[in-house]
Amino acid sequence: MTAERRIRLDLAYDGTDYHGWQLQPRLRTVQGALEDALGRMAGGRRVPVRGAGRTDAGVHARGQVADALVPESLVDAEIGRGLASILPGDIRVRRVRSVEREFHAWRDAVSKTYVYRLDRTFEGDPFRTRFAWHRSGRLDLDAIEDGLRRLPGRRDWTGFADSRCDKEDRVRRLFEATYAERGGEGRFAFRADGFLTRMVRNLVGTLLAIGAGSMPPHRIDEILASADRRLAGPTAPPHGLCLERVVYPGEDDGGDAARVPPAEEDAWAGSW
Amino acid sequence: MTAERRIRLDLAYDGTDYHGWQLQPRLRTVQGALEDALGRMAGGRRVPVRGAGRTDAGVHARGQVADALVPESLVDAEIGRGLASILPGDIRVRRVRSVEREFHAWRDAVSKTYVYRLDRTFEGDPFRTRFAWHRSGRLDLDAIEDGLRRLPGRRDWTGFADSRCDKEDRVRRLFEATYAERGGEGRFAFRADGFLTRMVRNLVGTLLAIGAGSMPPHRIDEILASADRRLAGPTAPPHGLCLERVVYPGEDDGGDAARVPPAEEDAWAGSW
Repeated sequence: MTAERRIRLDLAYDGTDYHGWQLQPRLRTVQGALEDALGRMAGGRRVPVRGAGRTDAGVHARGQVADALVPESLVDAEIGRGLASILPGDIRVRRVRSVEREFHAWRDAVSKTYVYRLDRTFEGDPFRTRFAWHRSGRLDLDAIEDGLRRLPGRRDWTGFADSRCDKEDRVRRLFEATYAERGGEGRFAFRADGFLTRMVRNLVGTLLAIGAGSMPPHRIDEILASADRRLAGPTAPPHGLCLERVVYPGEDDGGDAARVPPAEEDAWAGSW
Repeated sequence: MTAERRIRLDLAYDGTDYHGWQLQPRLRTVQGALEDALGRMAGGRRVPVRGAGRTDAGVHARGQVADALVPESLVDAEIGRGLASILPGDIRVRRVRSVEREFHAWRDAVSKTYVYRLDRTFEGDPFRTRFAWHRSGRLDLDAIEDGLRRLPGRRDWTGFADSRCDKEDRVRRLFEATYAERGGEGRFAFRADGFLTRMVRNLVGTLLAIGAGSMPPHRIDEILASADRRLAGPTAPPHGLCLERVVYPGEDDGGDAARVPPAEEDAWAGSW
């Protein structure tokens, strides 16, 4: 029996061409791509990978975290180089490190932050079609704020979950929910100790219906109280959604959900 | 005979899926897409479109300018709406306006600014693969600066032109050439009164060879003096290149080439 150790992987991916995170037979998934790559490096044996968030088909990640047991003989730098060369360019592992054997990327997560991006330019920005939902219409930001204020807390989120959601326990604690617009982009950010299937996309669809005036802000309370998905707005499409950050015990929880780590694309602001 | 007026179009495109700007039979080009769309709105007659810069296959534009003669009966707002609905999402017309009949998008341009983006992150950024060339190796910024300083002026650029370049007059005035790095991205910016075929990509390939230490900075002088393309570095790939801005008489020329108008993607810097 080979000695093994657990590693933590921090990764980013453009989810456009994937059937989501979770392994599915004969479909291209992020978990599948990682398991194949690590399996090749481990001499062909299966290396199960656990992710912090099971992103849906078409959803992106800038801060996904995963863990896996790998042979002791593989050192971190070797794994990093191997993953960089084996994985396609739309999945990039940013960091590989040894963690204690008990580390569990999903179970140990204290909070996750999802960001949903809107392209708010009138004509649509051709450079953001893969990563933002084009919604140019007028939005009542006060009404959206009113809706957002009703969300934080420990609640049963059944009314915002997908009907396919098979989880028994639908109680999660939402720490923060924000929306802001700047430079032609709108960003919803949600930080919680967990999310149900399609929960963020249903929240965004409902909040945009509120912003467009087709629902009153207090509809949020009714959806939460009744647990009736039919009262909520339409599900926002996957491509605007991104798993931005996962926080573990002892790490800074980020405070304000809006302050996700500065994305590299942002670094040029103001100068040109 | 229908009365006609000339319009100016300001547009942006993701050039990934186009065979460049220029009309080519049976190939998908940006000019072709615009002419088709305007032709449909003009009742089926051909509407020739002239662009300020003939971007190559795979090259992008944030600030391309074009002009066309359209029937008087079509008003600007109508043209804007029509182009928005007919054109694919990777070409977006940002502004339509009436100009004097003599306006010529290419001939009247005072300067054009091209920006070449590098992804300088070690592992590559999956959100920028379409718009930046991944070059993570060490670069000697002083050597690149030294090379850049040798470029501005009115010169014959044959040594940096593609062998396919069929222009007789290869003299252009380069106003500015800069390079800067920030937040994992490197940006070359070149502002000139005109460019030859592949000139920017050959300049970038040469400057990167200088930055990597495989050529001395004074090689620039030798290429310019000898007009020998074989002395220059390899041609950088098209996907990092973007026509950022075109300036006409009476408009602010932008001064420093690096200060191209703030891109919308940049507006979030610092905050998250």
